Amino acid sequence: MRDGLNDALATVRALRVQADAREAREDAAVVEAPVALLYNGLSFAVMMATPCDLEDFALGFALSEGIVASDKEFNLVDSVRGETGVALHAAIPQARYDALQERRRNLAGRSGCGLCGVEALQDAQRPVPRVPEPQPVSLAQIRAALATLATQQPLNARSGGVHAAGFAHAQGLLVREDVGRHNALDKLIGAIVRAGLDPASGFLVITSRASYEIVHKAAMAGIGIVIAISAPTDLAIRTATAAGITLAAFARGDALNLYNAPERVLP
Amino acid sequence: MRDGLNDALATVRALRVQADAREAREDAAVVEAPVALLYNGLSFAVMMATPCDLEDFALGFALSEGIVASDKEFNLVDSVRGETGVALHAAIPQARYDALQERRRNLAGRSGCGLCGVEALQDAQRPVPRVPEPQPVSLAQIRAALATLATQQPLNARSGGVHAAGFAHAQGLLVREDVGRHNALDKLIGAIVRAGLDPASGFLVITSRASYEIVHKAAMAGIGIVIAISAPTDLAIRTATAAGITLAAFARGDALNLYNAPERVLP
Repeated sequence: MRDGLNDALATVRALRVQADAREAREDAAVVEAPVALLYNGLSFAVMMATPCDLEDFALGFALSEGIVASDKEFNLVDSVRGETGVALHAAIPQARYDALQERRRNLAGRSGCGLCGVEALQDAQRPVPRVPEPQPVSLAQIRAALATLATQQPLNARSGGVHAAGFAHAQGLLVREDVGRHNALDKLIGAIVRAGLDPASGFLVITSRASYEIVHKAAMAGIGIVIAISAPTDLAIRTATAAGITLAAFARGDALNLYNAPERVLP
Repeated sequence: MRDGLNDALATVRALRVQADAREAREDAAVVEAPVALLYNGLSFAVMMATPCDLEDFALGFALSEGIVASDKEFNLVDSVRGETGVALHAAIPQARYDALQERRRNLAGRSGCGLCGVEALQDAQRPVPRVPEPQPVSLAQIRAALATLATQQPLNARSGGVHAAGFAHAQGLLVREDVGRHNALDKLIGAIVRAGLDPASGFLVITSRASYEIVHKAAMAGIGIVIAISAPTDLAIRTATAAGITLAAFARGDALNLYNAPERVLP
């Protein structure tokens, strides 16, 4: 179930200009707000995000960022809405908290070697896990999932400019939306786990490009097939290869490009 | 002049699937690599970016992030390409360096109040400056700039999925591209300053949505008119109002939506 969609849209006044005509009207715009992620009281990150489906987001972010290893280690204890944004407070095991503090200290204390910034560059690309072997998928299933995804984006339908990530599985398509494509995917990852679905039993469809971050998050979640509507980056393709992910992009109409492990996409 | 475009594309192998046909081929994919930004040896940020026009990027980022107040305070001393990415080393005045260290310490030391994460949320939205009054623009000029922008994206033409930011001024349209829309804008801001153009003398056109970050960077650069092809967020509209920026979005064909200060867009 989607949650908090009413908080995700704002009414804005716009002057619509078309050819020589000007017309004042009210439009819906997607809400973009700072969402802070805190673990055992420690503020780890603030993302600009759309404040809906936040329970999914909190769990999905913790999993895809490797802050916890499973949902059993994660407990959302509070969600505080303020004037400036939302703070999501989670409780995690002490050992995970210690690891997080260490990671945070490294990020903060990192001054580079003063010569080449090599350490900072290496930190930017975290190791990527190998995904479990996913169930193969047919072109017809991919086309059906893309067609369904287009109809399951209530925020985008009203405001435009919202990304959606969907997980196609035996029982249907699970969809989450956000102003940021990586947030949409984090929300989806949380929703998959909360619904008790096996990430290897389905595939990801996403309305955006396939960037490094999208593929990395899919790998962390154990999703083995990623279908993007727009273009891939070179690093996304290399990351998919390293993770054993089948990556497809430019998936539109009856066409798509496959970059690795194409045998999992059946005719 | 665009710089380093050859480093911005990689050749990738793809299997093109269309209806029942499969064809192996070589495609161009945009390069996405970590680019580290260091000031007086201090590593401040690592962005996933397309490694072209990096002199523009280094200066534009420093200006739009408020690390320096003008290009006179900024000196790119080295650009080091490694296996994992690029490190851009700049020299800045001691007072700016001290301020940067303080900002970094605040980000790092910030543990939240343990109750609500309010400080972390407030930090996410930095104060936005008022822009100087820009020159008004006509609908015909906007349409011409958008049409020219579509033809001035060599990376996007070859790889798809690359964003472009353009600055329309009396002598033409300056364009920069990147896999990230905020990076494309940072590159453009650097290019505007290096070309000696007055930000108040023209307007910004961008192929993406108008998010908070886009409007904030435009404000930091002193650009008073922002035209986005896709949707705005609510926070982008409010930030534009606070900065005194005329924001237009959904700019396609002969139509666009204006959200504030519409009197600067002449029929």
